[in-house]
This record gives sequence, structure tokens and C-alpha cells, in this order.
Amino acid sequence: MGPHPAVAAIRLAVRRVLHDLLTEHSLEHSAEGDRTRAAAHPGAHNSAATAPEPPRTAPEPPRTAPGHPQPPLVLVACSGGADSMALASALAFEAPRLGIRAGGITVDHGLQPGSDTRAAEVVLRLRELGLDPVESAAVTVGRDGGPEAAARDARYAALDAAAERHGAAAILLGHTRDDQAETVLLGLARGSGTRSLSGMAAVSGAGGRYRRPFLELDRQTARKACMVQSLPVWDDPHNSDPAYTRSRLRHEGLPALEKCLGKGVVEALARTAQLSRDDADALDTWASQAEATVRDASGLLECAKLYALPPAVRRRILRRAAIEAGAPAGSLFARHIEEVDRLITGWRGQKAINLPGRVVAQRQGGRLVIRQG
Amino acid sequence: MGPHPAVAAIRLAVRRVLHDLLTEHSLEHSAEGDRTRAAAHPGAHNSAATAPEPPRTAPEPPRTAPGHPQPPLVLVACSGGADSMALASALAFEAPRLGIRAGGITVDHGLQPGSDTRAAEVVLRLRELGLDPVESAAVTVGRDGGPEAAARDARYAALDAAAERHGAAAILLGHTRDDQAETVLLGLARGSGTRSLSGMAAVSGAGGRYRRPFLELDRQTARKACMVQSLPVWDDPHNSDPAYTRSRLRHEGLPALEKCLGKGVVEALARTAQLSRDDADALDTWASQAEATVRDASGLLECAKLYALPPAVRRRILRRAAIEAGAPAGSLFARHIEEVDRLITGWRGQKAINLPGRVVAQRQGGRLVIRQG
Repeated sequence: MGPHPAVAAIRLAVRRVLHDLLTEHSLEHSAEGDRTRAAAHPGAHNSAATAPEPPRTAPEPPRTAPGHPQPPLVLVACSGGADSMALASALAFEAPRLGIRAGGITVDHGLQPGSDTRAAEVVLRLRELGLDPVESAAVTVGRDGGPEAAARDARYAALDAAAERHGAAAILLGHTRDDQAETVLLGLARGSGTRSLSGMAAVSGAGGRYRRPFLELDRQTARKACMVQSLPVWDDPHNSDPAYTRSRLRHEGLPALEKCLGKGVVEALARTAQLSRDDADALDTWASQAEATVRDASGLLECAKLYALPPAVRRRILRRAAIEAGAPAGSLFARHIEEVDRLITGWRGQKAINLPGRVVAQRQGGRLVIRQG
Repeated sequence: MGPHPAVAAIRLAVRRVLHDLLTEHSLEHSAEGDRTRAAAHPGAHNSAATAPEPPRTAPEPPRTAPGHPQPPLVLVACSGGADSMALASALAFEAPRLGIRAGGITVDHGLQPGSDTRAAEVVLRLRELGLDPVESAAVTVGRDGGPEAAARDARYAALDAAAERHGAAAILLGHTRDDQAETVLLGLARGSGTRSLSGMAAVSGAGGRYRRPFLELDRQTARKACMVQSLPVWDDPHNSDPAYTRSRLRHEGLPALEKCLGKGVVEALARTAQLSRDDADALDTWASQAEATVRDASGLLECAKLYALPPAVRRRILRRAAIEAGAPAGSLFARHIEEVDRLITGWRGQKAINLPGRVVAQRQGGRLVIRQG
């Protein structure tokens, strides 16, 4: 008798990602001129397969096969909640079967009384699953961009540091399809277009360090997998605190949309994320290529050439130019870019336009000048 | 003392659209070599400014200025509800000031008892506003695509016929920013990407016949404008019938989202529509240009060349090819196209793929063959 379907589903999702990592590792290994052992022992070092500057020496002596190259290490980021505990259990099961070392890290955000005890408990649970190394990282959450963004920034900084310290090939994150749907709705509320609808990527971070194996799996499956494996899970009170936008979306917004539009909404939102990401990538490529063709010899943007481009491409070029001139990306809204665009499409002698970050855009002799004032 | 702000807002919105129509008309007129009267009497005929085959003679003798060219006619489509009654009142006020004739049409869908009486009442109200010609068009609603789609198809067919019959330059529709937000959410629920998020266009139909002056105006403003002008309005019971998806969205889904994400949601959704439309247009252009470059001498799609394109462009080409081969656009989902795409990106000797409309896609000797089987 095989495992429970929920357990089979989480393991399959993790196995696929580990296979991807091995393939990437193996390709890199092959590229270094040693193809013989690529499949069985996919890495001669334990760095991220596609990290920009992989360390060339193993930080610890190899454990599993003395005298052989160190097997790659994959870490799971675990809050102790159902999604990441399910992920940890699947990694603990699959990694050894593929010759991969599995470790874990939990981040103590220090936002609730007793969060250090909580983190120590998660460390114990991950060790009980057989993960090694396992550690807890305490962070200090700032205030930049609101409480959710500040906690996220602190968390990823700690995860990045842990990956570097252990020379991990990847860090697995437990985001599910439901998290993805929430992220798309949050992007929709910003009203800033296709890129903001593209949610979280399956592969992200420096050198593709972060992997999200559960992005096409629903939250219910992760919970079920914990239950049938008798894994204790922790419900983060933040997740049901209506002070948090994401929590309100989860408990009120999405259920209301499902009631109106049917149960397929979460899946449709997740699909929208993928399609939007592909579209945004293609348009960014186009804008990047077109940008070179619309600058004159001195590097200024030529209005007539910009005018000939589709609005979607032209506005991306304008946005890139404003950011390059020093406007902070997070403060640059669609309405700013539209106003600059009217210097091209609706020229009637407008004065200079002020953008965030003291950046000024103005039209001079058929050229668009965007610079810090 | 000027008009109430809500009345000023609806009039401004209509005035802008009428100006656009006059400019288009005038350009066409100028192109015919007679620039002298273009601004004051913008049309020598009363056809749509950008209609593909504008009739060259006026169907009726001119009324306002005997011996002069017939002024253009703009119709308002009016259900008797607040949005379209506000639109009719603004058209009745603005059109004569710009030398435009204003008429109205109401469609009797025959879906409710007494709908014919209702339509007759709307005709009276439009005449009271000074519109002329005014007529009611009775239609038979079929079943294709569900009750909402069938009613819409019948309605637009009747409006198209009325525009032809009267030689109208345009038909104004009362869709508001709130309708736009609902349309974006309905598109989101389909999960079929950027085009389905682009909502309704400000200008659409054959030759840009349909214009939506209120697309950036909220519903509350239209209601307020009716109230302060003492215009009687009719609340279509369909609009609050929970059997209709749009009605559920309006009364439950959107309010729940606003509660989670803040009052700016409707505006953000409307902005998403515009940005998505621009993005979808640009990518369609790219796909259309790229398609010519990926076909071999016999017109077959070359897999290697398709592979080199960004996924967003490649999948659009595959979708176009499937539709060209006879697959009905409405039955062709993202998952179909993804499966065909794997013949390019994940080739491992798959068998032929069946698509809607008995269309079959298969890979043969490095070429993709998509045709009706």
C-alpha cells in the first residue's frame, strides 16, 4: 500500500524540484569537463547550481561518502506551520533517495512573546524528521514598507545568509497555490499591471536559490499531509489576524469571490500569475531591446521614435529611464508614467514633470530628458 | 451657478467623446479635400467616422440646415437604468451645442413580463429629453453561451442594425468604471490571461462605432446625476438577481474585496484593464509579426524557430494557428495551448494532441502540423 494521496502529492512536488536541481547541477558539472559522475553524484561542490559566484570548496568535510565529492545540500525554510512542515517532511523523505543532503532553517522574527521558544520547538521537529543541519535564525524586523514587507525583507536576508553559510544549493519555500492566489489579488489591488499580477515565481532569488515546490498544490493538501503523518503544526496567529491584509483576503475576500465565481477561482488566479509572468517577461525583453534603438548619438530618448512604439513598450522604456535616473521603483506609479507619456503622445508645450526621487522629465527639442533635478 | 458636480462630470465625459468623434469626422472630411467647413460642420455625411465602408450619401434630407451637409447623428443605448439615463441626459445637453444630432434606442429583450411596456416608457423618457430619433427594438434572446452572453449578443445585433439604419456616427453605452471592475474580475475568474483582464474598450465595434464615455466614471456619480436632474430611473431586477454572476459580484464579491483591500479596488481594477489591454495589444502585434518568420517555405511552423521565441509570443502563435485551423476561440483554453507548447519545449515523442473543433496538433520532422482531422 502506498502513502496517502496527500503525502504522495507533496513528495512528488518536492521530487520534481530536486530532480530539476540535480539536472542543473549536473549540467554545470558537465560544463566543467567531468561528465563521468554527473548523474550519480551530481555536484563536485555544494553551491547553488546557478549561483553567480559558487564557492569552489566544501565548507564542511563530506559526510556521506568520504573521499567523494560532497553531495549538494537543500534547505527548507520552515515556520512550523502546516505548509512548511509538510514541505520539510517531503524533503526529509525524498532527498536521501536522490543523494541530496536535507537541512532546515526557521526564522524567529521576534514579533510575538515566546517566539524564541517557538523557534526552538521548530528546530527540534525538523531534527526529528532527520534534517541536518537545522538552525534557527533570529532577526530584527524594521519598519520599511509596512509590517508585512519589513518581516519579509528580514526573513529573506536571514535565509540568504544561511544559504551562503552552509553553501546550500537551494532553499525550499512552502508557498501554496492559495498563497499565490492571494498574492495575485494583492497585486490586482495595486492596479499596476501585468508584472504585479504575476505573483511569486517557482524559481527566484540570486542564482535561482529559492524554489517553491508547492506553488501548484493547494493548502488543503499540505494540511492533510501533516495530519495523516501526525506532524504537529503551529497556526501562526498572524495568519488569522484581520490587521493583516493577506489574512483578511484569505478569510473573507477569497471565500466571497469563490461564492460569486465558483471554486475554480484560486486555480484561475494561479494560472493568471503564470500567464502574466510570461507576458511581463516578453514585454520587458522587447522594451530592453527597443530602448537601444530610440536613443540618439548622445544617449537621449528621441520622441518621434518613442511615438512609433506600442504604448505598452514605450511606457516600459519610460519607466526604466525614470528608475535609471534615480526614481525609486516602489514609488513610481502608472499615473506618473502616463504623465511622462503625454510628453510624447499629447505634446502641447507641457512644463517639466516631477517624479519621485527628485527626478524630472521634460521634452526639449524633440528629445525626452529624464534626470535628477 | 453651474450644474451639480455630478451633472458636470457626466456632461464633461460625454463632451470629450463627442469632441473625439468630431475630430475623427473632420479628419475624414479633410482627407476628402474639403477643409473649409470641417470644424463647424464636421461631416458631409452621417456615417461612422471610421466605418470601413461609409455610405457617401445622406439617407434622410438634412433637418437642421437645409442645403447644408447633414450633421452627424449619435445614438445612446438606454435601458432606462440610472447609468444610461444619465448618459442620455448628458448627450441631450451636449450634442446640440456641438452641432450633433442626438437620438436614442432601447432594446426590449422580452425576458420579463411587461418588458414591452417598459421599453415604451423608456422611449417616452428619451423623447422628453429632446432626443430624436428614438426607437425601441424588440429582440429574441437565444441560449448560446449562457443567458448573459445570449442577451448581450441579441442586444448588440439590434444596436448594430439601428446604427446602420439611421447612419449613426456612434452609439454611446453607459458602462461605468464599476462595470469595468466587474468585467475584469469575471475575466480573472476565467484565468486565461492578459487579454481576458482587459475589460471593455472605450472604443469598440465595427469602425469604432461603440463609445463608452463613463468608463472612468463611478456608478454613484451617474445615479447622483439622475437624482439631481429628477430623472426617473428603472432598476433592472436582473442587476440584483443572485442567479447572475455579475450581480453576485456587484453585491457581494466586490464589496468583500473592498473591505479587504480598501476602497481603491474598483479604480485599481479599471486601471488593470487599461494596462492589460495595452500589453495584450503589443503582444498580439509581436506574435503576428513573428508568425511570418517561423514558417517554412510550405507554410508549416518550424519547431526550432518557435522554441527560440519567448513563451508568451510562442503560445500566442500556437493559439492563432489552432484557431486558423478551425478550433473555436471560446473553447480553446490555456491548458490546450500549453499541451501543444510541450510539443516544442518538452518533445519526447508525444502523440497527436486533440483540440476543440476536431483540430489535431502534431509534431512531424521538426515541423508542427495543426489541422482539422
